[in-house]
Amino acid sequence: MKAEIIAIGSELLTPYRLDTNSLFLTDELNQLGIRVVYKNVVGDSLDDMRTCFGIAVLRADLIVASGGLGPTDDDRTRDAVAEVLSRKLQLNEEVLHKIKERFRRYNRSMPEINARQAMVPQGAAILPNSRGTAPGLWLEHDGHIVVLLPGVPIELQSIFETEVKPRLARLNHDERLFTRDLRITGLPESEVEQRVRPLYELYPDTETTILAAPTGIQLHPRIWSRDTAKAEKLLDEIVDRMALALGENLFSTHGETLEEVVARVLMENHATIAVAESCTGGMLAERLTNVAGSSNYFLGGVVCYSNELKTAFVDVPAAIIESKGAVSSEVALALASGIRRRTGATIGVGITGIAGPTGGTPEKPVGLVHIAIADERGSREHAIRFPGDRERIRLYATQSALDMVRRYFLYPAVGRG
Amino acid sequence: MKAEIIAIGSELLTPYRLDTNSLFLTDELNQLGIRVVYKNVVGDSLDDMRTCFGIAVLRADLIVASGGLGPTDDDRTRDAVAEVLSRKLQLNEEVLHKIKERFRRYNRSMPEINARQAMVPQGAAILPNSRGTAPGLWLEHDGHIVVLLPGVPIELQSIFETEVKPRLARLNHDERLFTRDLRITGLPESEVEQRVRPLYELYPDTETTILAAPTGIQLHPRIWSRDTAKAEKLLDEIVDRMALALGENLFSTHGETLEEVVARVLMENHATIAVAESCTGGMLAERLTNVAGSSNYFLGGVVCYSNELKTAFVDVPAAIIESKGAVSSEVALALASGIRRRTGATIGVGITGIAGPTGGTPEKPVGLVHIAIADERGSREHAIRFPGDRERIRLYATQSALDMVRRYFLYPAVGRG
Repeated sequence: MKAEIIAIGSELLTPYRLDTNSLFLTDELNQLGIRVVYKNVVGDSLDDMRTCFGIAVLRADLIVASGGLGPTDDDRTRDAVAEVLSRKLQLNEEVLHKIKERFRRYNRSMPEINARQAMVPQGAAILPNSRGTAPGLWLEHDGHIVVLLPGVPIELQSIFETEVKPRLARLNHDERLFTRDLRITGLPESEVEQRVRPLYELYPDTETTILAAPTGIQLHPRIWSRDTAKAEKLLDEIVDRMALALGENLFSTHGETLEEVVARVLMENHATIAVAESCTGGMLAERLTNVAGSSNYFLGGVVCYSNELKTAFVDVPAAIIESKGAVSSEVALALASGIRRRTGATIGVGITGIAGPTGGTPEKPVGLVHIAIADERGSREHAIRFPGDRERIRLYATQSALDMVRRYFLYPAVGRG
Repeated sequence: MKAEIIAIGSELLTPYRLDTNSLFLTDELNQLGIRVVYKNVVGDSLDDMRTCFGIAVLRADLIVASGGLGPTDDDRTRDAVAEVLSRKLQLNEEVLHKIKERFRRYNRSMPEINARQAMVPQGAAILPNSRGTAPGLWLEHDGHIVVLLPGVPIELQSIFETEVKPRLARLNHDERLFTRDLRITGLPESEVEQRVRPLYELYPDTETTILAAPTGIQLHPRIWSRDTAKAEKLLDEIVDRMALALGENLFSTHGETLEEVVARVLMENHATIAVAESCTGGMLAERLTNVAGSSNYFLGGVVCYSNELKTAFVDVPAAIIESKGAVSSEVALALASGIRRRTGATIGVGITGIAGPTGGTPEKPVGLVHIAIADERGSREHAIRFPGDRERIRLYATQSALDMVRRYFLYPAVGRG
């Protein structure tokens, strides 16, 4: 079964906005065994919408459209689809009643324009919307299915879950999509690609998507199959081989973020952590605490931008700052051991560097970051030069610090000072 | 002139990836006076691509396609377009030479498959690619223009800037797009919409896009016009009226982030800031320091998750924590004045709250956040309950704190304690 997604709304044709509903819809459809073959964005123009739906009903088995079901003159999806499928639009009393009810519940009377949302193409099934006024609509036409959903994500998702999914599941598709979500850090995308590429030929029925971000590279191997057991076994095998090829750089085989992995590792080791940051300005603490339950392992941190605060908050000797500079191995090490001593944490992390855009010198260029980790026995430090702009340098630096913490616990022989 | 954008690549039909090139292309095209009417995503299938291009040449004046120009078997854009426009594909010796040169520069010889990238549909103009191997292509056909660009954003953008833009500019479009970028905080999207809606009728030739995010609401009024002076004057007038309708909640009329506005306001007042955060875990410091030059006003901060550190780092009296609880007005005020005293900053900000998902009680539910600001004369505090999940509550809390700082300086009669 081939699906086409149509996102409707002139705002989606501006430089400011992307149709993100299609990601949710693709995920759901794939899990039901339905491939998405085309995605379209079209504005509020009735002509353009007619063209779009006219083409879609010729080439796709299932069309899922979002948006254009509101109460205003710009909301023309119902009209366009009625015309393309040669159906009359009729007022549906039951839908009208429900919309009025909804307004009554909020102690308001229904504005006249909302009656438009009760207009339904002949023969359409109504998909109730518990989160808003516009119901979804399900139409069948010459063996094609057309599903119309509101564009508001929470409404679209709730109607899809409760109304569309069960209907589509009943159609009994023979294939389903099986997938994995691997996360890698510390390698460039091209290196990851090169390491796993030999597997593409070994498993020609698997497609693999690679997606790079400063917070890690994602690998998604995918198989369409009729046979659950066989597909899962094959994916397990592929993941095992990928793990072998990626080594310590692979930090999750099931879509965890690096901070979630670090959280798990800290808790498994009954360890606590505290951080002292300069150039990352609080981002390391922010990432450590964006995991629910982080108070179990995160004690606290300081953001010491000025030299005085490095000394006042974590006892970095002023003499070291003076002789080695605020961006130096020695200061990173002093930050890590200082915050550890001040908080009583199992490990302390220190970061100092030059995030830019200014402040670089030939010896200490923009992007240079020192990261240190301290425990009760001592400390160790890395200096890395990251590429990119300020935001990217800060992200890479926190990513690298989190990965040092992960490796410290998982590969102690290498990771400990 | 009507444009259609086609993004090519099977990875863009997965749940993991959106076509973001179209935002750049739309922005550039709009500035050249070209409206984008359709956007499409299609996979690597030759059949599907043929359908897509076949339809596009019937309905758009300009087609800009991205992707599918690589060297592998999956890269079929050249084939599809050659077929649809009934052109032969021919090896272009000059392109081949350039590709070989590029490999030579990196001391490698060209793999045989890359010769594919030198195949060019008859009559196409070559758009040199200084960032990669695949050149862009420009074709004209029955009054329609087809532009093919590589999918790698940096290559696409550089070819567009140097090759496509000047060619399109020469076509002398009569209309251009004029736009503004207003930023609002502290009001829900529906309230912003309601306040500016009366202007839509006053200015029927203006389209306005509204875009909501936890970091502020964006309003983009847009006018297509032949007359620069008239359009700019009209936009100035609209912005003035919107400013009146939005009052203090409008924080920028030209697309600044809230942290940039706060940075400017702090520097204009020769003021410095320091922060003590609990539930936001470093996010407030991170946002204050993601502006270049933040060391001019940001002294430092502490993230004191545990009660002990609230006392150790910023002198919050243990007795207050015990009697009022860590999440209380009193602790927020003590955090703000404590960090101010410890750092010598002009103002101190304190945040304490419950980001969830657990830890809420009937009296202190998840989402409750206390934010305090202290200066040399005293301090003031707000308690707000934010909706949403952990991430959203933390974002809203930092947004609210930044806005308190902005108001403190801009509206001192209201904002100061």
